Amino acid sequence: MIVKLSRNDAETRQAVSAALEAMGAEVRCLEFPFGCFLAGLGLENPPLKKIQAMAGVAWARAAGSKPILAAREQNPHGSLVQLGRMEIGGEALALVAGPCSVEDREQIFSTARFVAAYGATALRGGAYKPRTSPYAFQGLGQEGVELLKEAGLEAGLPVVTEVMDPADVATMAPFVDCFQIGARNMSNGPLLKAVGRAGKPVLLKRGPSATLAEFVLAAEYILLEGNAQVILCERGIRTFETATRNTLDLNAVPVLKSMTHLPVVVDPSHGTGRRDAVSPMARAAVAAGADGIVVEVHPDPARARSDGEQSLHLPEFRRLAEELRPVAEAVGRRLDLPETLPFAPNQVPLLRRAPGWGGSR
Amino acid sequence: MIVKLSRNDAETRQAVSAALEAMGAEVRCLEFPFGCFLAGLGLENPPLKKIQAMAGVAWARAAGSKPILAAREQNPHGSLVQLGRMEIGGEALALVAGPCSVEDREQIFSTARFVAAYGATALRGGAYKPRTSPYAFQGLGQEGVELLKEAGLEAGLPVVTEVMDPADVATMAPFVDCFQIGARNMSNGPLLKAVGRAGKPVLLKRGPSATLAEFVLAAEYILLEGNAQVILCERGIRTFETATRNTLDLNAVPVLKSMTHLPVVVDPSHGTGRRDAVSPMARAAVAAGADGIVVEVHPDPARARSDGEQSLHLPEFRRLAEELRPVAEAVGRRLDLPETLPFAPNQVPLLRRAPGWGGSR
Amino acid sequence: MIVKLSRNDAETRQAVSAALEAMGAEVRCLEFPFGCFLAGLGLENPPLKKIQAMAGVAWARAAGSKPILAAREQNPHGSLVQLGRMEIGGEALALVAGPCSVEDREQIFSTARFVAAYGATALRGGAYKPRTSPYAFQGLGQEGVELLKEAGLEAGLPVVTEVMDPADVATMAPFVDCFQIGARNMSNGPLLKAVGRAGKPVLLKRGPSATLAEFVLAAEYILLEGNAQVILCERGIRTFETATRNTLDLNAVPVLKSMTHLPVVVDPSHGTGRRDAVSPMARAAVAAGADGIVVEVHPDPARARSDGEQSLHLPEFRRLAEELRPVAEAVGRRLDLPETLPFAPNQVPLLRRAPGWGGSR
Amino acid sequence: MIVKLSRNDAETRQAVSAALEAMGAEVRCLEFPFGCFLAGLGLENPPLKKIQAMAGVAWARAAGSKPILAAREQNPHGSLVQLGRMEIGGEALALVAGPCSVEDREQIFSTARFVAAYGATALRGGAYKPRTSPYAFQGLGQEGVELLKEAGLEAGLPVVTEVMDPADVATMAPFVDCFQIGARNMSNGPLLKAVGRAGKPVLLKRGPSATLAEFVLAAEYILLEGNAQVILCERGIRTFETATRNTLDLNAVPVLKSMTHLPVVVDPSHGTGRRDAVSPMARAAVAAGADGIVVEVHPDPARARSDGEQSLHLPEFRRLAEELRPVAEAVGRRLDLPETLPFAPNQVPLLRRAPGWGGSR
Repeated sequence: MIVKLSRNDAETRQAVSAALEAMGAEVRCLEFPFGCFLAGLGLENPPLKKIQAMAGVAWARAAGSKPILAAREQNPHGSLVQLGRMEIGGEALALVAGPCSVEDREQIFSTARFVAAYGATALRGGAYKPRTSPYAFQGLGQEGVELLKEAGLEAGLPVVTEVMDPADVATMAPFVDCFQIGARNMSNGPLLKAVGRAGKPVLLKRGPSATLAEFVLAAEYILLEGNAQVILCERGIRTFETATRNTLDLNAVPVLKSMTHLPVVVDPSHGTGRRDAVSPMARAAVAAGADGIVVEVHPDPARARSDGEQSLHLPEFRRLAEELRPVAEAVGRRLDLPETLPFAPNQVPLLRRAPGWGGSR
Repeated sequence: MIVKLSRNDAETRQAVSAALEAMGAEVRCLEFPFGCFLAGLGLENPPLKKIQAMAGVAWARAAGSKPILAAREQNPHGSLVQLGRMEIGGEALALVAGPCSVEDREQIFSTARFVAAYGATALRGGAYKPRTSPYAFQGLGQEGVELLKEAGLEAGLPVVTEVMDPADVATMAPFVDCFQIGARNMSNGPLLKAVGRAGKPVLLKRGPSATLAEFVLAAEYILLEGNAQVILCERGIRTFETATRNTLDLNAVPVLKSMTHLPVVVDPSHGTGRRDAVSPMARAAVAAGADGIVVEVHPDPARARSDGEQSLHLPEFRRLAEELRPVAEAVGRRLDLPETLPFAPNQVPLLRRAPGWGGSR
Repeated sequence: MIVKLSRNDAETRQAVSAALEAMGAEVRCLEFPFGCFLAGLGLENPPLKKIQAMAGVAWARAAGSKPILAAREQNPHGSLVQLGRMEIGGEALALVAGPCSVEDREQIFSTARFVAAYGATALRGGAYKPRTSPYAFQGLGQEGVELLKEAGLEAGLPVVTEVMDPADVATMAPFVDCFQIGARNMSNGPLLKAVGRAGKPVLLKRGPSATLAEFVLAAEYILLEGNAQVILCERGIRTFETATRNTLDLNAVPVLKSMTHLPVVVDPSHGTGRRDAVSPMARAAVAAGADGIVVEVHPDPARARSDGEQSLHLPEFRRLAEELRPVAEAVGRRLDLPETLPFAPNQVPLLRRAPGWGGSR
Repeated sequence: MIVKLSRNDAETRQAVSAALEAMGAEVRCLEFPFGCFLAGLGLENPPLKKIQAMAGVAWARAAGSKPILAAREQNPHGSLVQLGRMEIGGEALALVAGPCSVEDREQIFSTARFVAAYGATALRGGAYKPRTSPYAFQGLGQEGVELLKEAGLEAGLPVVTEVMDPADVATMAPFVDCFQIGARNMSNGPLLKAVGRAGKPVLLKRGPSATLAEFVLAAEYILLEGNAQVILCERGIRTFETATRNTLDLNAVPVLKSMTHLPVVVDPSHGTGRRDAVSPMARAAVAAGADGIVVEVHPDPARARSDGEQSLHLPEFRRLAEELRPVAEAVGRRLDLPETLPFAPNQVPLLRRAPGWGGSR
């Protein structure tokens, strides 16, 4: 059962919690910008009417196979997720860019510097990599996480990186501004719960065979841990089509917007697996109403240790940002690009020395 | 074997045809705006080198499992298909609108009048309807075709309608400006050949389980009959997702553009099956580079005999057109909308009397 | 509306037909082994109660998006379809074998002779071939149909062959014992109606993206023309899996059996596209309750003009038949194999001279 | 790089390991019944020839995107996995039965007792349940694991249960005879590695959108940890079909058998989601060559806390076992069912008192 409070004071919370506990429920208090909720879990036939009649209770609903906390009606104007200096879900679009994998210091620093200069609002990069083959590059692990954060700090960008094991959440947390749950882990309950408890923004990717209803329920797992800072990311589903690596399902954008109040971003790199389709699909995503774009960028895609064929070259990223801007404006959104460009796109200064480290430890 | 001529004169055509026939091939001469080709069919091991050495021959290629005539390289700048006053594939976007089915005179005339006034460039409407159930409304047949043409003439719009049986092509042709091949018939060889021979533009819809490679090969069937006026239409594929009727696959737009020179339009009505997703996905299609939009519009969707839940109300069509215009401009395209609107969108004049008939018979 | 008669006499038929016609319905009288029905088509709100109250009427039902005539309840014990000497759907299993395409006299006669000797109950072979590429071998057409029939007559087997164009039905009919509707044409309404009217058994293949509900509705199209001799054939659906050409969906067997009274056979050749998977999946189909197997066999698969990689060699067909027999018995069915084998499997006598022709014209 | 040793003595292992380490590789020694291997991981361009030339080395291969250790060629006769008294992959079929979830003592003990009496070779039951909704029953956790083991001990059956979090492996291990990796976790690298290191048999379920190639690579993750006791379980893939919960893909059986030496079992309960399809598909799986069946059985499916609609009633399980036996024999396999039945199928004695506990702690 989920209970929405109409009065969020300690007295009400305590009284309702006590009533739920007396019924045998496990009780959680969930305070979100869009309201305060109490979850009473584990009851088979919860006495909704009795709770609903209590003072300070707006409503009480049986929880079942549909999302409640993530449902659009809880926040019809849409939720904002703060990531660095920007609010994802607002008028301005998010532009999350970076390499598939953090490979070495030079690669991640030069990419970070470049994408920051051309309008990225966050830096992405994988350190724990889910790979189909156990023989494929599995990422640099915690070392990669720390390198990414260092590069993000230097470039002034918050960082997003994937976590695969609940046991890694605590170690990674000081270096991570937003945890990514990868597509293969969308239904990984223990992991969803762990990032829910970490209290940081979560970029949740849609599973390759997940329906949109299941996708929103995966987000509900995170919200039920008290964390509403969830960004949904469409990244392609698995279909019979082989011309693209996945079938980027942009229908997800308007449909998710009608189902949930959470921001929705789109990853055309994984969604298509083809460099030549990334920019058209990024433009399409913005036109469909996405709140941002997640895109793979690499200083030398031909030598990338993963996903090279779908990573943009640095100059292509600049062009992408420039192409996205008018589309954003055509649909009443904004893409804030820097006025002055510190260097020519094909002359990205490579890092000569390690910058002073100032992590958030 | 396909032979591209470098000199398109009667003498060359005759000499090469004779050589092909001497080898036992069935020969077809295909004259397109982008070149003159001879197809020599039915040879297992065609002597390419011998033909290639002939005067007036640019090249000769073995035909197999890949498209040749529809391939991008034959016309890298892209082909234009003339439909009414507009060229599909050019700077201006096509806007094909109308009801799923032609139901009666009043319905089709009022829709035609309205969509013409708000920027449609062609009128669509089904008269022969492929339906899953034999008990569902099967369309008005030839009577519907003629009503549609009459409405198009009055509104000044060319008409597009589906043909399902090769035997109907000849009867329908005088009333049809563009034949539609529906998704279920994309692989219907006899039908593709029949519309190929009819010499009119063809709107070819992608089959619900067709790969893009197969889609272009279906177009190749039509080109091989000497007809290059083919418009490809993405209308959604069948996947596991149930929130949408089909999964509109916008990746098809950039990928088809790299594979073929034929114009590509998108049908977000069938592609999503949800009225609330039609406009966002139409905008997305334009942003992805589509050459036009095919959309279902009905004066009273709640009473439509088919596809009501995905048909736009007339005022929604006006809004769609107005929303598409800035997106088109953001990607360097144009949507030509009438300057003056003859009537308020919710006051579409209904037809009181039959207009003078002036079909193209 | 569908009306089931409890009394099938001329008087009742006439009275009910007249009542339906008076309401404006198009009336068809459908006489099947499992009952006599009247279809009253084209009424939006049929007055069921009024018809139901008439003498000789068992029930009247509104026809909509679900099958009525093909539904299991019309014939709970299951329908039999007579093909040659056997009844498909009975205790004995059907074994339909032959090449993908009829290629030449020697190929089809040697195959026919062999498969007949080893237990086939019908001969299959394509003459009109639906091919993805217009450059692929399109079949021998009517000449192939006639060759197939000739080979079937010599071998004592009824023949099954695909029809693609409604216009071909009449020409083919004298030479065809069972029309095949291929997977790509499962939803081809004009073709379903044409074979429905031809009054011969129809082998209806499931479309690659058709749900089972849609598959049974396609059969309903044929029954609504008065023809209940429909055999459903599962032949694989299109999924993301690439290890097999299609995903043979054996779940279809028990699920179809619960939905419809029509016999269900399985084609493991197209369903898997791999010779090494044909026999295991044929055994599995029989164990799941299929009424028969359709299998591609070729005297020289490596040189087959189509589907060579999934065609069995002649000796493999013999082994298949021998392996199927004990599985059939394990599930209470029978596979009748000839007691004596006229020749060793690797010494199939090739045809030296044309046999006397005795078609059924 | 994977190195197969032709001589498995300490000296050879040491010499080759030292050579690999000298190249900078991370070295693992993998001793399997079908040979001893050294994995040298982390090298980009491994000097294969140099290693191959060493004494005691059979071959050295570059590891990439294909399985090596799990590949059929490593053990062409097929591997056996010992589970309780039986060897899965041998002539006798495995029959793994039990409820979806362990719900309470009485439920699991009565089920265990019954399925043991009717031929089950292992007891399944979920304690950690991956559920789409966070509000659905999540299982009894470790308490459920211990109850399951207790019931298995009483009934004389080894137990199989799902693990979802790498952190739970150690706690669960003393009570688990075989870890199950559920379909949603097939690509969960940290979890695959954790069960690989646990040294117990693993029942690995195919992911709902995993190709067979990806499935075998998931098994390779486990083998690369030194654990070759992996049983592959086909349990249905996600397709467009809605008549079944998933599409049980029996093609997986022959195809996996050609790809890998690991045993293959089939779960028709999850694969179809329909009680009426479980037995036909179980028979089909055996006929296709599966090494066993995993099936959900519940004493009162209508009240099951999960998967009730696909769980067999106890008497149905008895019938299933009896129906499977002749099919097994028809394909040269065996299903060992108890000669004497201790009680009538509808009179399963319920547990009155807790049995003496004798876990393997």
